[in-house]
Amino acid sequence: MPFREIKVIAFDADDTLWVNEPLFRKAEDEFCELLQAYLPKDEANKLLFEVEMKNLPLYGYGIKPFTLSLIEAAIEISNNNTPIALIQKLIAKGKEMLDEPVELIDGIEDTLKQLNGDYKLVMATKGDLLDQERKLIKSGLESYFHHIEIVSDKTEKQYTKLVKHLDIAPNEFLMIGNSLKSDVLPVLNIGAHAIHIPFHTTWIHEMVEEEVKHPNFRSLSKATELFQYL
Amino acid sequence: MPFREIKVIAFDADDTLWVNEPLFRKAEDEFCELLQAYLPKDEANKLLFEVEMKNLPLYGYGIKPFTLSLIEAAIEISNNNTPIALIQKLIAKGKEMLDEPVELIDGIEDTLKQLNGDYKLVMATKGDLLDQERKLIKSGLESYFHHIEIVSDKTEKQYTKLVKHLDIAPNEFLMIGNSLKSDVLPVLNIGAHAIHIPFHTTWIHEMVEEEVKHPNFRSLSKATELFQYL
Repeated sequence: MPFREIKVIAFDADDTLWVNEPLFRKAEDEFCELLQAYLPKDEANKLLFEVEMKNLPLYGYGIKPFTLSLIEAAIEISNNNTPIALIQKLIAKGKEMLDEPVELIDGIEDTLKQLNGDYKLVMATKGDLLDQERKLIKSGLESYFHHIEIVSDKTEKQYTKLVKHLDIAPNEFLMIGNSLKSDVLPVLNIGAHAIHIPFHTTWIHEMVEEEVKHPNFRSLSKATELFQYL
Repeated sequence: MPFREIKVIAFDADDTLWVNEPLFRKAEDEFCELLQAYLPKDEANKLLFEVEMKNLPLYGYGIKPFTLSLIEAAIEISNNNTPIALIQKLIAKGKEMLDEPVELIDGIEDTLKQLNGDYKLVMATKGDLLDQERKLIKSGLESYFHHIEIVSDKTEKQYTKLVKHLDIAPNEFLMIGNSLKSDVLPVLNIGAHAIHIPFHTTWIHEMVEEEVKHPNFRSLSKATELFQYL
């Protein structure tokens, strides 16, 4: 059964349009490597995650909060004996991540090309606007999107605001993304449509244990499969 | 002469709705104080500003970029001998700034109350969305605004996008803010209206030497003076 009435399609950015999570996994590995004189790698990784979660309400998502959490976790792990050179490496790592080339997810450009003109396409992300704009420009996908919607978190409240801001009814809105927690569940709960395209790497904070069954929901293995539902 | 045709009024946030710049000035003073064993205060301040300007294209605006620049500048000033306790103080300072209570600018709430209903009011800021949302909620002004527009920088290109996104003509847009560079000049250049309400403290990066003369421009000493032009 196809989805009817869709007017606006919103694409999540990280790990939906382009590869992102593996860059964080790589940075975490390097972090644990740098600190293995103080703590075994898996414990360092766990402590880093705890610091990130503690800072999330105040810092939000993105590479700059991540960099600050790396520094804070390094100080904690090294018991206040962090060599300054290590802190410099963490700052440099953050900058390197901000400047990373963009690798598109398979099939995404063809999909956007085909949707273009038939729907208003927006990019909806909880990342940092400057970082996401930079990636959008580097990706070459900018011309497909009407605009970027930045939300501070992907909750029902934020999606309600977004749909109101787009001047459409919830059932005219379709969200496409790789996170059940952020891109699917809150969207279905406000009466909109959602498509899940899983990515092989998911941040533990984004994981949910549920299986989703809903008439407004589909799961795809690749963006190009979208057309059978539109 | 009143402005005609205005449909959307956008308010800058920091130092237009609420006090902001003095918090950064205070943090800079404390930073220089902490590092005075290594460098005289005015030189430390100058070096911090250089680090901030170097990082601006990559980091953008806001408290998290500022915190990262504080750490980087401290390492440079102390010639790689920064005590870890000092770095912890800088991280704590950043968190304290993110959590600071909001102090409204004189007359702003009365102005918003009076405009409410007659115009679509938006908040347009180049800060960090999460931080600005938090301040908006704390300020008690949230109900006056239709939504928040976050721009990565306040350039002609970004204002053109914003006006397009609002589905209005440039001359139906009025921007109100404390920075001639960010809130006035690029706005006038795209054919929109701008009102300048100077704040006593301006970041050196936002300063311009010009005197503005333009039929779409007014300068006020207080937001409540706005009504003679609407």
